[in-house]
Amino acid sequence: MRISILGGGGFLGRKIARNLATHGTLGGKTVTALTLFDMTEPPQPDAAFPVASVAGDVAHLPDQAIPAGTDVVFHLAAVVSAQAEADYDLGRRVNLRGTDAVVDRCRALGTNPRVVFTSSVASFSGDQSTTLPDNTRQIPGNSYGAQKAAAELILADASRRGFLDAVTLRLPTVIVRPGRPNKAASSFFSAIVREPLLGLDTDLPVGDDFAVWVCSPRRAVDWLLHAATMDTSALGLDRSIDPPGISTTVAHLLQALDTLAPGASSHVKRVKDDAIAAIVSGWPPAFEASRARALGFSAHEPVLDVIRAFVEDDLAATRADRETP
Amino acid sequence: MRISILGGGGFLGRKIARNLATHGTLGGKTVTALTLFDMTEPPQPDAAFPVASVAGDVAHLPDQAIPAGTDVVFHLAAVVSAQAEADYDLGRRVNLRGTDAVVDRCRALGTNPRVVFTSSVASFSGDQSTTLPDNTRQIPGNSYGAQKAAAELILADASRRGFLDAVTLRLPTVIVRPGRPNKAASSFFSAIVREPLLGLDTDLPVGDDFAVWVCSPRRAVDWLLHAATMDTSALGLDRSIDPPGISTTVAHLLQALDTLAPGASSHVKRVKDDAIAAIVSGWPPAFEASRARALGFSAHEPVLDVIRAFVEDDLAATRADRETP
Repeated sequence: MRISILGGGGFLGRKIARNLATHGTLGGKTVTALTLFDMTEPPQPDAAFPVASVAGDVAHLPDQAIPAGTDVVFHLAAVVSAQAEADYDLGRRVNLRGTDAVVDRCRALGTNPRVVFTSSVASFSGDQSTTLPDNTRQIPGNSYGAQKAAAELILADASRRGFLDAVTLRLPTVIVRPGRPNKAASSFFSAIVREPLLGLDTDLPVGDDFAVWVCSPRRAVDWLLHAATMDTSALGLDRSIDPPGISTTVAHLLQALDTLAPGASSHVKRVKDDAIAAIVSGWPPAFEASRARALGFSAHEPVLDVIRAFVEDDLAATRADRETP
Repeated sequence: MRISILGGGGFLGRKIARNLATHGTLGGKTVTALTLFDMTEPPQPDAAFPVASVAGDVAHLPDQAIPAGTDVVFHLAAVVSAQAEADYDLGRRVNLRGTDAVVDRCRALGTNPRVVFTSSVASFSGDQSTTLPDNTRQIPGNSYGAQKAAAELILADASRRGFLDAVTLRLPTVIVRPGRPNKAASSFFSAIVREPLLGLDTDLPVGDDFAVWVCSPRRAVDWLLHAATMDTSALGLDRSIDPPGISTTVAHLLQALDTLAPGASSHVKRVKDDAIAAIVSGWPPAFEASRARALGFSAHEPVLDVIRAFVEDDLAATRADRETP
């Protein structure tokens, strides 16, 4: 299997690359080549198969980002929520023109590669009391979500035409992200766990009772790998799936944090931020996700395990990274 | 009021221009300037206000297509269903890049002009037994519908951001269209009325019991003018409206035709066309359209009046046009 990861230098891209390098297989088939594409050449994991790193602009995708013979493309390249809100042109170029470029490249190959695309809960609007059924209409309240929803339509149409074979996962807010805060409006959901575990204070821009639909990096990677090899014949025209995340609250996250690191939540300072709150308040905190369960997407582990996994997988590297000036 | 019509040389564009020229007002306000934009310079109606014709590519929209001071833009420029299916790149360029160009121009003006956009029933999929509620998710079964649904998202986001003030009408199949058959898959719904009235044979590619959601040109123009001046504050994030068309069948249309022109339906030849049938079979034949009614969009006249209006408004001009080689 020949695999490309667009956004291969990002958080999930690197985790997928490491997973493929560790196991050497995807869906039971041997991985024979991996291409990692990002704005700068992504780091390469140690692997038994050849790995290529390619740098460029996804809206002007170089052919070598998706080489001839590619079986699976993970299209994770994106401008995230707060950044797409701050810079309309950049969001449109990366999130929409970038997706068009992926369509054009796959179409030129003529081999109908699987494309696994990450859309987002941010493509929906709702309120804190909503549980969204499958088949809910996307009425986005932010440019990132609008661009993701439009890209879903473009990829579904390209699938119908046989240019590519898309599976879109509308990912929940992924926690706990390692590294530093990023420009996603949801960044604080990771920060309120990560920063206290590093012994650092962090701001909470919403109330403790704020509800949110989340998934762990481990679960996101598992879902993305499943999407890469699942039978798509049952999808029909509808290529988009709400995977089975979990609905939790800030208070519940902090309680789990204190269970693992007693007193850690005292590092969380209540500092309201209306701009952030305005974006995340429109994201529904719960989904039925029944279609995803029927399609074999794995069930989510509890919140305590999410934080435990961060400590196991990412805390040491995050600490080392943060100690580097 | 300064008004621009993109696609001003098309069927609905010309009808709107004539309506404005005849009445001299829009929503009770005096029209002070009209710009008509299309691939070639659109014909100008006789009007008491200045009219400019501009030719160009909507994806590279010239500034003078939407001059400074424009209050209302009718964005009707589109590549229609069968053509967008046959030429993916052309459909994407006109239907998506064209909409981006409208956003960019309105944003540059900085005056938040009203943009009335025509989307389509073709952006939904369903079957012959479906009545779609408002808020139904768009899962298009053709590239035209996918591009229209994506453009709706882009315009709604641009409205939220204050670049423009969009109202999207998802028009039913408009009958009876004058002139010659065009590249819309729905072209035959007009041809089975128009051609017999001209004394000409025409092919029917679907069964007599085929159900379809239609509106008349008079009703479409009335809705588009209402969309141009309605209060948009009640729309919220959702800028798209299913107007109250009527659900009819081929048999019902032919019966009405024979009522007005006895025996005319004998010109309709049953010649199945699977390619056309495959596209139109996915368009839902009925919508609840309750939101549109609440927003003041006018109720539809019966089928007999639709055909009578074609005879009054367009039959003579169509006959003259068809006699010109």
